[in-house]
Amino acid sequence: MPYVNVKMTRDGVTKEQKRALVEAITQALVTILDKKPEQTHIVIDEIDTDNWGFAGMLTTEYRAQHDKV
Amino acid sequence: MPYVNVKMTRDGVTKEQKRALVEAITQALVTILDKKPEQTHIVIDEIDTDNWGFAGMLTTEYRAQHDKV
Amino acid sequence: MPYVNVKMTRDGVTKEQKRALVEAITQALVTILDKKPEQTHIVIDEIDTDNWGFAGMLTTEYRAQHDKV
Amino acid sequence: MPYVNVKMTRDGVTKEQKRALVEAITQALVTILDKKPEQTHIVIDEIDTDNWGFAGMLTTEYRAQHDKV
Amino acid sequence: MPYVNVKMTRDGVTKEQKRALVEAITQALVTILDKKPEQTHIVIDEIDTDNWGFAGMLTTEYRAQHDKV
Amino acid sequence: MPYVNVKMTRDGVTKEQKRALVEAITQALVTILDKKPEQTHIVIDEIDTDNWGFAGMLTTEYRAQHDKV
Repeated sequence: MPYVNVKMTRDGVTKEQKRALVEAITQALVTILDKKPEQTHIVIDEIDTDNWGFAGMLTTEYRAQHDKV
Repeated sequence: MPYVNVKMTRDGVTKEQKRALVEAITQALVTILDKKPEQTHIVIDEIDTDNWGFAGMLTTEYRAQHDKV
Repeated sequence: MPYVNVKMTRDGVTKEQKRALVEAITQALVTILDKKPEQTHIVIDEIDTDNWGFAGMLTTEYRAQHDKV
Repeated sequence: MPYVNVKMTRDGVTKEQKRALVEAITQALVTILDKKPEQTHIVIDEIDTDNWGFAGMLTTEYRAQHDKV
Repeated sequence: MPYVNVKMTRDGVTKEQKRALVEAITQALVTILDKKPEQTHIVIDEIDTDNWGFAGMLTTEYRAQHDKV
Repeated sequence: MPYVNVKMTRDGVTKEQKRALVEAITQALVTILDKKPEQTHIVIDEIDTDNWGFAGMLTTEYRAQHDKV
């Protein structure tokens, strides 16, 4: 019974993308580990870039200086 | 010093229900494990049903097809 | 479909205590929020006291100076 | 920069299975969300079945009564 | 490659305070553990006081009875 | 009342290093956000390198190919 938590920056991810991500991760757990889909829960947390620190700065600032990460 | 994190779908849970849940979980930790309430923290995360994957699909879609889960 | 994560210090908690804790938390979610037991997952993480910081020190050290917490 | 945490029961998952799971989840994040692999971290926590509550009981007990979950 | 998750009550923390916190935690990981900043991710979750239980009650209520915590 | 969770690879971190890390993070929360040490909990999870995926592979393998990360 896996529980998966995905944390990613809030970047306008669409419902269709979330659906595709849930399908892909569930499928990986079924195929590789023989897990049951109805025992598999996946929670997606979208985090504001002001709340995600990376390389010692806020992602908002990192992105202003670099390519998108 | 327990720390408890409850993740559940965002379904209009009331403040009164949150209070009752915090009381019940704290009481269980005190009674069963002799923990101190003033060392016990409980964080409730309410998750949009578009962000909770279950059985290989989004909970929004699962609920449209099944009974409430 | 709640997911609950309980973090507590590793203090020789017995299987019977874990069972009682799981029963009590599940029952609270059923009674207060009408959740289904077969959608409710509870993960207990037991943490060495050297790995739990509290009040600016390791719990191992805090306990040497104070009552058990 | 996604961070993914997979919690699953400790069931003798092999290093090869972990590698396959990391590859599949990373690939899903790259393909669906255009994430960079070198910004993607995935932590796998294997949980003893005595520490995973499900359906109001410990998974150890649930499995003794049901098919593997 | 550390991943750090900070959960704290939502109390109007400013972007400048988040930046300072990310800098300080990253610096601690670099200085004490020789970690690389570009491998260090820090996610800050701000939690409504109605969703943080402490001492058996909601923080909203605890604060109405006590000094700020 | 912050709760901080630090996940890092299991690399023989000493008790002294854990103490220093807990002190530094607690101090940052006190100085920057006026938090109280006796409300601040910090849990350190040390993760086997076979259980930490990075850049689409296990950290064990990544390190065999690159400098330490």
